[in-house]
Amino acid sequence: MIENTNIRALAKALNLSIGTVSKALRNSHEISAQTKEKVIALAKELNYIPNPYASSLRRKKSNTIGVVIPEVADSFFSHAIKGIELIAQKKGYHVLVYLTYESFGKEEAILKEFNSGRVDGVLLSLASETAKSNHIDSLASKDIPLVFFDRVPDDKDTCKVSTNDFEICFDATNYLIEKGCRRPAYLSISKHLSINRKRMEGFKKSIEKNKDKIKNSQIIQCSNDNTKNYEIIKKAMQRRNSPDGIIASVEKLTTPVYLVCKDLNIAIPQKLKVISFSNLETAVILNPSLTTITQPAFEMGKKAAELLFKLIEKKKQQQKNEHVIIPSTLTIREST
Amino acid sequence: MIENTNIRALAKALNLSIGTVSKALRNSHEISAQTKEKVIALAKELNYIPNPYASSLRRKKSNTIGVVIPEVADSFFSHAIKGIELIAQKKGYHVLVYLTYESFGKEEAILKEFNSGRVDGVLLSLASETAKSNHIDSLASKDIPLVFFDRVPDDKDTCKVSTNDFEICFDATNYLIEKGCRRPAYLSISKHLSINRKRMEGFKKSIEKNKDKIKNSQIIQCSNDNTKNYEIIKKAMQRRNSPDGIIASVEKLTTPVYLVCKDLNIAIPQKLKVISFSNLETAVILNPSLTTITQPAFEMGKKAAELLFKLIEKKKQQQKNEHVIIPSTLTIREST
Repeated sequence: MIENTNIRALAKALNLSIGTVSKALRNSHEISAQTKEKVIALAKELNYIPNPYASSLRRKKSNTIGVVIPEVADSFFSHAIKGIELIAQKKGYHVLVYLTYESFGKEEAILKEFNSGRVDGVLLSLASETAKSNHIDSLASKDIPLVFFDRVPDDKDTCKVSTNDFEICFDATNYLIEKGCRRPAYLSISKHLSINRKRMEGFKKSIEKNKDKIKNSQIIQCSNDNTKNYEIIKKAMQRRNSPDGIIASVEKLTTPVYLVCKDLNIAIPQKLKVISFSNLETAVILNPSLTTITQPAFEMGKKAAELLFKLIEKKKQQQKNEHVIIPSTLTIREST
Repeated sequence: MIENTNIRALAKALNLSIGTVSKALRNSHEISAQTKEKVIALAKELNYIPNPYASSLRRKKSNTIGVVIPEVADSFFSHAIKGIELIAQKKGYHVLVYLTYESFGKEEAILKEFNSGRVDGVLLSLASETAKSNHIDSLASKDIPLVFFDRVPDDKDTCKVSTNDFEICFDATNYLIEKGCRRPAYLSISKHLSINRKRMEGFKKSIEKNKDKIKNSQIIQCSNDNTKNYEIIKKAMQRRNSPDGIIASVEKLTTPVYLVCKDLNIAIPQKLKVISFSNLETAVILNPSLTTITQPAFEMGKKAAELLFKLIEKKKQQQKNEHVIIPSTLTIREST
């Protein structure tokens, strides 16, 4: 765009970065008064006229936020989107949903596009493949506000909304053991995801605490491709010392677990007790009804959007690294 | 944008519409060679320079398609989106998901935004509130290709991908009657939606055909707000001549139907046989497993995207009003 040439010329003449000049021109609080004065004086001298479209981009007027999630088939995300929409609607913003399908490459491409100013802010729940974070840093360098929700990174100093993954999984495992399980298993998905690690640590902590009661415990590594999980779980259930209790770390594992039990004639809850992370409406009408770790999906989406709008509106009282934790609840049904 | 002034000036001088001038400048096949020549000659004379951003809009280079759907909680849409993504990815396009939450106002606002050139093409599944279609016509007038899928309008002469709603619902009702139902009921959602009307007509046609066997049949009007449907269905099941067979026209009705039966001690399938339109993975592990009308969701999304890209690429062989029908299948399980 023609305008970038002008900003570039300004930046070169003043020996400043293009980003600094751009921020100074839109009166960003990150730039000192002295620098702003210098930039504005030269802009006037060079008769700098901003291109109206680019200018609207810089002034962040897309009135749109981007929500980047791994999939829509998980009921957690459909509830979270409703919470996000509620807040966005109040603010007069559009919500665009971008799907990564658990792919790091897709996530990277989506965030790259955001750098062009397509959205005013981003809500991100990481893909399970994502192990690096350079693509996230580039967003921050463009001054596009970002709030993580649910699948948050451990290492980033940004705003995050998550649930008490460690504690709730510790409680759920304790509950399985109280109900008589001696060979509990944790069904794990991605090793990269912080939430999976935290849930697994909660499981392990409970095993450690109850070690005098436990005969055998295991972590069963499942696939992101759910069509493979029936065989993985079936094998685990046919081995010696097969589990008598299961914590499924994601909702989609429920169907293969139930199908394996049906096909191998393993009675739930008599022979195997099952708990799954899930917000599925149908949990209550399954055979048997499913004990779930119910995440506050709607509330988490709502809170993440509220934080994002505070950042977009540059509220001074809003810290840039607030971490909100909204607790999940264990909903006990017939499967345990 | 400055440029519109120029296009407007050209249009006025030539006594043509802005749309015609715009199309002539990008060499659209819809404009005659003679008109193109006139427009280009005057554009040169007036030293018309297109604004690069607006020009990229006109040349349709957003490399993005918009998918407008009523909700993501229905598994039909999550499967359809996967089919759409598959095709879009091959074409190097992004997919943006816009949610209407069944609201006409939201649908209207979203389509209005598309008029600004944000997307190169639109896949639309109508909101249940949508009874008018002016908002759709305005999209067509901007030359933004549009393909309807699943919830298609009856009256529009555009590309559509749907399933055999009438026939499959006729078959499903016949099946209920064969299995002994004498008091079948159809659970209806929106009166505006063509697919709901077609499904209902299929139901009625079967009742008509089997009238000597039927003691009582009814259409039960349910709510878009699923929290109200438990009470609606409960009342229907407590009346004299309550149904002994149900066709649920949308997936989300399954949970209230099963819960009512649990609470009223109505055995499925002995006292009530249940069939639902559904692509729920958990249908097979419900108590009892659910007989479903399984829509070819993935294939419908894929086909709709293929048609859209033919329109975007202005393939001459592509008719602008092709209607593709991909049949659903009745998947029989324990609930009947």
